Amino acid sequence: MKNYSSKNENEENDLLTNDYLVKMNKYWQASNYLAIAQQYLLDNPLLRKPLEPNDIKKRIVAPWGTVPGQNFVYTHLNRVIKKFDLNMILLSGPGHGGHFWTAQTYLDGSLSEVYPQFSQDEKGLKNLCKAFCFPGGMSSHVASDMPGSLHEGGELGYSLSHASGAVFDNPDLIASVIVGDGEAETGPLATSWHINKFINPITDGAVLPILHLNGYKVANPTVLARISKTELKDFFKGLGWKPYFVEGSDPMTMHKLMCKTLDKVIIEIKELQDTARKNNDDTRPIWPMIVLRTLKGWTCPKEIDGVRIEGTHNAYHVPIPMTKPNHISLLEKWLRSHKPEELFDEKYKLKPELKALAPKGKSRFGANLHSNGGTLLKELKLPNFKKYAVPFSGHGTVNSQDTLVLSNFMRDIIKYNPENFRIFSPDELPSNRINAIYEITKSVFNAEIIKEDDNIAHGGRIMDSFLSEHMCEGWLEGYLLSGRHGTFVTYEAFATIINSMIS
Amino acid sequence: MKNYSSKNENEENDLLTNDYLVKMNKYWQASNYLAIAQQYLLDNPLLRKPLEPNDIKKRIVAPWGTVPGQNFVYTHLNRVIKKFDLNMILLSGPGHGGHFWTAQTYLDGSLSEVYPQFSQDEKGLKNLCKAFCFPGGMSSHVASDMPGSLHEGGELGYSLSHASGAVFDNPDLIASVIVGDGEAETGPLATSWHINKFINPITDGAVLPILHLNGYKVANPTVLARISKTELKDFFKGLGWKPYFVEGSDPMTMHKLMCKTLDKVIIEIKELQDTARKNNDDTRPIWPMIVLRTLKGWTCPKEIDGVRIEGTHNAYHVPIPMTKPNHISLLEKWLRSHKPEELFDEKYKLKPELKALAPKGKSRFGANLHSNGGTLLKELKLPNFKKYAVPFSGHGTVNSQDTLVLSNFMRDIIKYNPENFRIFSPDELPSNRINAIYEITKSVFNAEIIKEDDNIAHGGRIMDSFLSEHMCEGWLEGYLLSGRHGTFVTYEAFATIINSMIS
Repeated sequence: MKNYSSKNENEENDLLTNDYLVKMNKYWQASNYLAIAQQYLLDNPLLRKPLEPNDIKKRIVAPWGTVPGQNFVYTHLNRVIKKFDLNMILLSGPGHGGHFWTAQTYLDGSLSEVYPQFSQDEKGLKNLCKAFCFPGGMSSHVASDMPGSLHEGGELGYSLSHASGAVFDNPDLIASVIVGDGEAETGPLATSWHINKFINPITDGAVLPILHLNGYKVANPTVLARISKTELKDFFKGLGWKPYFVEGSDPMTMHKLMCKTLDKVIIEIKELQDTARKNNDDTRPIWPMIVLRTLKGWTCPKEIDGVRIEGTHNAYHVPIPMTKPNHISLLEKWLRSHKPEELFDEKYKLKPELKALAPKGKSRFGANLHSNGGTLLKELKLPNFKKYAVPFSGHGTVNSQDTLVLSNFMRDIIKYNPENFRIFSPDELPSNRINAIYEITKSVFNAEIIKEDDNIAHGGRIMDSFLSEHMCEGWLEGYLLSGRHGTFVTYEAFATIINSMIS
Repeated sequence: MKNYSSKNENEENDLLTNDYLVKMNKYWQASNYLAIAQQYLLDNPLLRKPLEPNDIKKRIVAPWGTVPGQNFVYTHLNRVIKKFDLNMILLSGPGHGGHFWTAQTYLDGSLSEVYPQFSQDEKGLKNLCKAFCFPGGMSSHVASDMPGSLHEGGELGYSLSHASGAVFDNPDLIASVIVGDGEAETGPLATSWHINKFINPITDGAVLPILHLNGYKVANPTVLARISKTELKDFFKGLGWKPYFVEGSDPMTMHKLMCKTLDKVIIEIKELQDTARKNNDDTRPIWPMIVLRTLKGWTCPKEIDGVRIEGTHNAYHVPIPMTKPNHISLLEKWLRSHKPEELFDEKYKLKPELKALAPKGKSRFGANLHSNGGTLLKELKLPNFKKYAVPFSGHGTVNSQDTLVLSNFMRDIIKYNPENFRIFSPDELPSNRINAIYEITKSVFNAEIIKEDDNIAHGGRIMDSFLSEHMCEGWLEGYLLSGRHGTFVTYEAFATIINSMIS
């Protein structure tokens, strides 16, 4: 079990002590604090003086509700990355909450390495607060310019397919995905739970979906949060996943539960991979996943002016609207409830005992090379296209088909690049006469295969056996952004289905 | 139980006899025969003389594989329409197989009523065969110009949302939907199983999904056909449906099973509605659905030139390609295996004892007014828009918001049209400031409602509590095409997601 034994036995034992969980909780509070500070503040980021109207942004726009849950996941994944020495990336599915990502990458230092203006001092922290959701600054979603962000937020529904694209041909990579429960209602996300039929446990990495049931989208409850637990379990079992539930609202109880669950889940993933690799058996395993049920806006004020906020759709956006003079003191109280003075030292730096909880170097989400594919990109080996030319001596003398010729060229690209080139298509390759590629490899299909099937295999390199433009586009994007090459084949008539993502 | 008792007790008893099933089988064979004839023949439609090369189309393009299964469903739904006196429409989800629809509407006469050139005689039948998939004729999918077609085929994934849109505010209507297993892989379809959280058992009708697992799409097996029955059951249970399985390949066994299952399912739908309406309880019921597993290309040749056809992806398109001279005799043998001389009389008319199996008049799928919405359309009552004008005396004198004003106008349209106008939006009404509408009615949400929820209800008229552009677009389209009015509210940035359907 060496691959997934604890790196640090002492730390492992620490976990059993309350002390470690208290530190984790503080780390989580630090990330939540920084997110609120980015949402509201222009100045006075650690409240070293009383909060003044001038410290506050004139227009407060970023949706907050999803932030504490996502910070919770990030903080906990940090722990397992360290404990198991994981090569893991994180994709944030919800459309907003970008300040959770900037808060976390600021805390672990990866943001400051890419953007020196967000330095680990008072000035850097001020800059960070001001820049978020501010003209010329950073967007309200986890955008592509945030370090470690492979999955651009905004249009919902592609987090799982992006994650899956990223782990193809990356056998040691785990892509954790926070799936928003609003996002989960979109078509592209709904069908992408089927990624587990296209992941090879030997040659690909693993995807760990964490469905974040915080109950509300912009104005309404989410469907998956309002069906019975039995239905939810059946749903995921039917889709071939093994769901683990982490549900509650008391932070310390939730920390303990999440630690235990994540340990179990990571060990399970590693064991499934070990078994498959040891026995050379690439049959689809039942991969684990997590259903994380938290309050919307968890830890924000319970009620303001008689209106319930925490745990309702009122927490989606701005928990404390700056509409009344006394709301400034409410905001100050909320910020101070995180005890920033216990989290940061006098030089505005995260305290060392908390900093020690984050992974180091390239193990941090903000610095993992797989989510910054350009750094890993190897040149595609291309055969000389001239040798595929159809010789002709005059008009009307030759009978040939363009895509059949093209398919010979594609076949050889696959041959020359067995580990970093794939073709993606929604079940349209043979009907487009891209046939020659099957001489080299097969279509990936990791559901049941029967003896009459000819062109499909658990281990193949052609991604054309799922009829969803959305899924195929997401796969391609994840594969490219993690530093590989690929192409997309579809009919012109159906290309508009994924217009919004392609453009 | 008068609403769903048998209309005709004798017929009911007939069902128990083999005689009735034999007739149903012949009706099915007649529809399959006509589909093959449309696919291949230009002339000699009932093979009254030996088949000659000149009788055959030069280019045979329509995909056949889905046809016999869809004909099977149509034939069986005809029976329950008659037996229970149902007001039912049918939507064909698979992208092709349009000749099943033209065959069936020709058999029941509704096609000939709309298109006199397809008369019920030799000439009409010849015209029908020639017109299908022929320049200037009819398309290979169930297009909007085919009588009774509310759901245009082609782009996959909208069959369930269209069906659901059609039954809103149509409490007596049942929309049966053949969902293709290829179609089921698309994002829009995958998320639309959730329609059951938006159908009100008192004021709306019912949707009966029939998932047609014939195992293959164009070139590959389908995922839902290649997971275990346990997973498939869990999947549908998790989505809140009660699945009934009809599986097999022996026609007579399958007829019996389908009769029994459909009887059970229709009675269940009616009982759920009766109970809800009697008790004024609009809580989401667990609606029944059917999983129909058949061979791909069921009843076509098992093997040609050593290549397996029936039950494989080779049956998707043209089971007998006209590539070798001896294939004409294979085609003739296949056509004659249906014994057309036992199905049609000497005047090329369907024999009366078979014709008697189809419903009459407006009960036929091809003539149901709900799938030809223009015939039912009532004018929308619009308030005078001038009374919503914002009075102003000069530039810069008035502070107002355009969409807030618009929302007053929309509120009153809802008020004046309580049964045939709905607003559709992917969770974006309050964020677009369309607030006033909630003074009149609530958002439809038929999953769990808790006491903190303010704007949602099982019975409402606003369709904005599901975050899927695809679903909302499908709902709107189904609502409009069945003869009502509606509007779609979304952000400009996200409108391109459904570009291909809108345009």
